[in-house]
Amino acid sequence: MAITLYSLCGVDETRPFSPHCWKVVMALRHKGLDFEERPLAFTAIPAVEEGVSRTVPILRDDQHLVSDSFAIALYLEDAYPEAPSLFRGEGGRAAARLVEGYAQQIVHPAITRIALPDIHAMLAPVDQDYFRKSREQRLGRTLEDFAADRETAIAAWPAHLQPLRHMLAHQPFIGGDTPLFADYIVFGALQWLRITTGSIHLASDDPVSIWFGHLLDLHDQAARQIA
Amino acid sequence: MAITLYSLCGVDETRPFSPHCWKVVMALRHKGLDFEERPLAFTAIPAVEEGVSRTVPILRDDQHLVSDSFAIALYLEDAYPEAPSLFRGEGGRAAARLVEGYAQQIVHPAITRIALPDIHAMLAPVDQDYFRKSREQRLGRTLEDFAADRETAIAAWPAHLQPLRHMLAHQPFIGGDTPLFADYIVFGALQWLRITTGSIHLASDDPVSIWFGHLLDLHDQAARQIA
Repeated sequence: MAITLYSLCGVDETRPFSPHCWKVVMALRHKGLDFEERPLAFTAIPAVEEGVSRTVPILRDDQHLVSDSFAIALYLEDAYPEAPSLFRGEGGRAAARLVEGYAQQIVHPAITRIALPDIHAMLAPVDQDYFRKSREQRLGRTLEDFAADRETAIAAWPAHLQPLRHMLAHQPFIGGDTPLFADYIVFGALQWLRITTGSIHLASDDPVSIWFGHLLDLHDQAARQIA
Repeated sequence: MAITLYSLCGVDETRPFSPHCWKVVMALRHKGLDFEERPLAFTAIPAVEEGVSRTVPILRDDQHLVSDSFAIALYLEDAYPEAPSLFRGEGGRAAARLVEGYAQQIVHPAITRIALPDIHAMLAPVDQDYFRKSREQRLGRTLEDFAADRETAIAAWPAHLQPLRHMLAHQPFIGGDTPLFADYIVFGALQWLRITTGSIHLASDDPVSIWFGHLLDLHDQAARQIA
């Protein structure tokens, strides 16, 4: 009755890079659950589990099939209540949605401006076609435009993490003394940046770098092994 | 054994406007506690409670004296555990610090760019001198520079609330089904903008406007009375 996580990769299956899938990987490890990760190329996603979702993560746990990272976290919290909590109460569960809003509306766009050409370069030709068309349509700019502005985007990047630094002046994790799913939400974004571009583009003594390092160290440095 | 809240006002004592004090007003009402609010001008703050703090809010509850809005919320939660919770658990308490980071690092600077000259206009001359000097030094620009860029700042304002709109697509409050202190943290910022400029500068059908309206409606529309 093993758990299967369908995640996202480019040509190299050993380097899954999706921020949303990394949230789920961290959540599964947090819960102490065994799972098999099956990284898929973009265009391979509709071929698994009878095309249940056009995006990953998709989680299969015995007869349960769940897609969307937040829905998966809620599923795991309810299905495995004895394992360490991902939210530590109703207030934490609710506030995680605003953390997701911060990550997806502020952090992700800033990363996209840096990493889009790098992501494209990781993909097989058929996925490059899909990626270029879908992203250029969504963003209204060509990949080459993004590449030309890369240095400007890297210079602007640290300022978008000010909310995180404010929090880190008071406590070590968004979850308080220990990390919770809210930490993994933002971690997923930085891990995406790290794997696709080779760096999180922050000074090593930045409090955000130190926080990120603590999360890479969890579970025998499992997340650090992939780079 | 009444509770006294020292807050902030300009010439008109009936229009306290500090975002941090509004958080505490909402927290006190959430807890169902009676309190007396004493709005102070900027330069009057060092004269109360033996100069315990150069900033408000300052809360006196019998022998307890607490300053800083987050510290006051933590104090109220621990001192009045039987009253409705401000955090709903440890995860909510911890995540509220990231919400504070979002409010102070992203929302507050955007409001400052709109409201600074309006705040100045509300103050008595002695407080205007203090306000101009301290703010121009902190921000590196004159009040007149801010006033000249006001329309640009108003146009840029709605985008800073995207994290809130993302959350509101899933649930009615940051606290989930009902508001918690995390909601009051962001509410305080918008109430500050509303009282100082006369508007929150958002379309009435913006989900953020609707959420803000629900919070103004709480406690017999007490927060709506002040405008």
